[in-house]
Amino acid sequence: MLNYEQFYSTSAKSMKKSEIRELLKLINKPGIIYFGGGLPAPDLFPVEEIKEVTKYVLETEGETALQYGPTEGVTGLREELLKLMEKQGIHLSLEQLFVITSSQQGLDLVAKLFLDRGDIVLCGKPTYVGAIQAFHSYGAVMHTVELDEEGISTKALEREINRLAEKCVRPKFIYVVPDFQNPSGITLSLERRQELIEIAERHDLIIVEDSPYRQLRFEGVPEPPILSLNSQRVLALYTFSKILLPGFRLGWMAGPKELIQKAIVAKQAVDLCSPPFNQLILAEFMRRGLLDKQIGRIVSAYKEKRDFMLDRLEKYMAGIEGIKWTRPRGGLFLWITLPESMDSSEMFLEALEKKVAYVVGSAFDPEGADKCAMRLNFSYANMEQIDIGIQRLAQVIKEKLAEKKVDSPITP
Amino acid sequence: MLNYEQFYSTSAKSMKKSEIRELLKLINKPGIIYFGGGLPAPDLFPVEEIKEVTKYVLETEGETALQYGPTEGVTGLREELLKLMEKQGIHLSLEQLFVITSSQQGLDLVAKLFLDRGDIVLCGKPTYVGAIQAFHSYGAVMHTVELDEEGISTKALEREINRLAEKCVRPKFIYVVPDFQNPSGITLSLERRQELIEIAERHDLIIVEDSPYRQLRFEGVPEPPILSLNSQRVLALYTFSKILLPGFRLGWMAGPKELIQKAIVAKQAVDLCSPPFNQLILAEFMRRGLLDKQIGRIVSAYKEKRDFMLDRLEKYMAGIEGIKWTRPRGGLFLWITLPESMDSSEMFLEALEKKVAYVVGSAFDPEGADKCAMRLNFSYANMEQIDIGIQRLAQVIKEKLAEKKVDSPITP
Repeated sequence: MLNYEQFYSTSAKSMKKSEIRELLKLINKPGIIYFGGGLPAPDLFPVEEIKEVTKYVLETEGETALQYGPTEGVTGLREELLKLMEKQGIHLSLEQLFVITSSQQGLDLVAKLFLDRGDIVLCGKPTYVGAIQAFHSYGAVMHTVELDEEGISTKALEREINRLAEKCVRPKFIYVVPDFQNPSGITLSLERRQELIEIAERHDLIIVEDSPYRQLRFEGVPEPPILSLNSQRVLALYTFSKILLPGFRLGWMAGPKELIQKAIVAKQAVDLCSPPFNQLILAEFMRRGLLDKQIGRIVSAYKEKRDFMLDRLEKYMAGIEGIKWTRPRGGLFLWITLPESMDSSEMFLEALEKKVAYVVGSAFDPEGADKCAMRLNFSYANMEQIDIGIQRLAQVIKEKLAEKKVDSPITP
Repeated sequence: MLNYEQFYSTSAKSMKKSEIRELLKLINKPGIIYFGGGLPAPDLFPVEEIKEVTKYVLETEGETALQYGPTEGVTGLREELLKLMEKQGIHLSLEQLFVITSSQQGLDLVAKLFLDRGDIVLCGKPTYVGAIQAFHSYGAVMHTVELDEEGISTKALEREINRLAEKCVRPKFIYVVPDFQNPSGITLSLERRQELIEIAERHDLIIVEDSPYRQLRFEGVPEPPILSLNSQRVLALYTFSKILLPGFRLGWMAGPKELIQKAIVAKQAVDLCSPPFNQLILAEFMRRGLLDKQIGRIVSAYKEKRDFMLDRLEKYMAGIEGIKWTRPRGGLFLWITLPESMDSSEMFLEALEKKVAYVVGSAFDPEGADKCAMRLNFSYANMEQIDIGIQRLAQVIKEKLAEKKVDSPITP
């Protein structure tokens, strides 16, 4: 066989399969309760409405739907998205927003726009695995700052920037998921948002605001989007995947006109345009007011699931010493911190044997070091599965802890 | 305003809007006869059949269609694609093929896989503008070799490889569009295909076979796909855009298992997966035998258009001294070489004023130098438009030639 390794780019040489992506393959195995990927609940998909709207689009603008479209996206959809942004307090012109083929493409474009090999990106820890993959694939080095209950520590962030400045190194941008962060479920407080902007101003930096979950708020008053606080330094990514459906692979990017226009040029070389067929369907779907309705439906269902998962965690895990979990006010995920001695990777196969799956904490650490944590998704499983799944998970953790005690009997 | 330039990556700094992409925007202007982009004829789109199949897919597997899917693509579609490849004489296993979000994404992934800044790609001249964009965005340097009636000159290609070898430089891959090449319409002869493989073997190189038009053959016996001649060194890109419709943004990549698996990992970071909705529709469309039917329909319509465009060229342009054009046996494009003194960019605005558009030859030259040529697309315009458009174009060329004679009266 040929030695293909010799042909690869530097970037390709270091590419690895993502653990979390590999996990996606497991959900088809019978009987597995899946708290892994960030999958929306399929029984909530508005299949009938999509069918109706698709029929209408093919009847009224079939030829446009099946043809190539503009790189920046179909105008009708972009206009609907401007209105949606307006409702979030973000005032934009058409030139400040374009359609992307999933927010993962948004991350790829951000990386293409800003990152040379060796460039530094600042982010929270834990942080979104897809961002780690995208930024690493351009040879970026990710410097992480711990999260607390208010999100990324702006103090620690500025310390890191200053530390780098002493070495004459300036990071390229700060990457944050401010609302119901993936994986932790933590929301960045208003004060921290303002501090983040001040830091970006002070040190002349760009902020990338990744915002897939913002509209999935179960309670409380929303903090303002970072983009609404600063129109010069914030590039924001949004997606239909969590608020509607992922199967269309559509999202949008918004920010300063100059950056958006540059990103559109970058997109030309990447996939020419996002599918006009899917775009026209979603434009019509939004025009009919169906998106708001759907978000309402999702929010109430996910809130119920979150409540139930928290309840079951309390019921089955409260007795485990040293364990704790976040209580997100929205989104799809919560984050369990295990007792310090534990390693969520080590117990992963045992969990699978008991037919329950999660994502190991290390997937969300650019250095792959965060062992004693795991991400649980509460949107995909149904109530019965949540009950059984958390019970099984608790059992695995308890067994593993008991083993550890037997393994090291001398430890006080 | 902020100085955004300072944040850009080396790659972003050199990104430019593509002339051809900008041209796409013109087609919406009223009255313009558009020989520009590679747009399929919209009146041939199987709108009714797509409507029917979409309804069926949403009714029978709606939840799968709207959910995330595997990065490598929906299995049902990949199985249909294997059968299609089989009919072309290409025998593959499932691991040797995956779904991409348009063949432009295929070019981006190929670049990601192989190219570091400064790496050399070998290709024909003229060559496909989207490939130039994709490879340039990774900092590649493209070395071109002239085409003749049999396609890329393998002799010149090997001379170039040897010349580089003397400087201890090895190109990363050879890029070819062997069937009805974009932009020239030229098809690589069987002998050249075999020589290309021999060159790749001799110099240990990869061949990227970009094959969007292969199935659009109007006459004659097809030459074998390069991938069918060598299973180790050829990575092939295909798309639904030209044989069915571009609005779904779907294509596929095929080749050696090792390269395909690596490309799938690269795709994870780029867009996670192609739209399962669109994939399931096309899988069912193929299962029903509708793709073959559609290709038959397209081939007979485009053949008629090509014949007519060649006829009109003969009628309106034969009198112009020094002009010539290719006679493609398939595909979407033909290539006009203007008299040497002419520049197709210079006359572009005059042509637009006369309401006819083409793509300037320089777009297909990585160095942007090829002035006295233009690409004409014969798939998009209708017969009446072809007649009027070629007449207008002939008039512009004649007027421009007359101007030149007045400008330089001393020239013999």
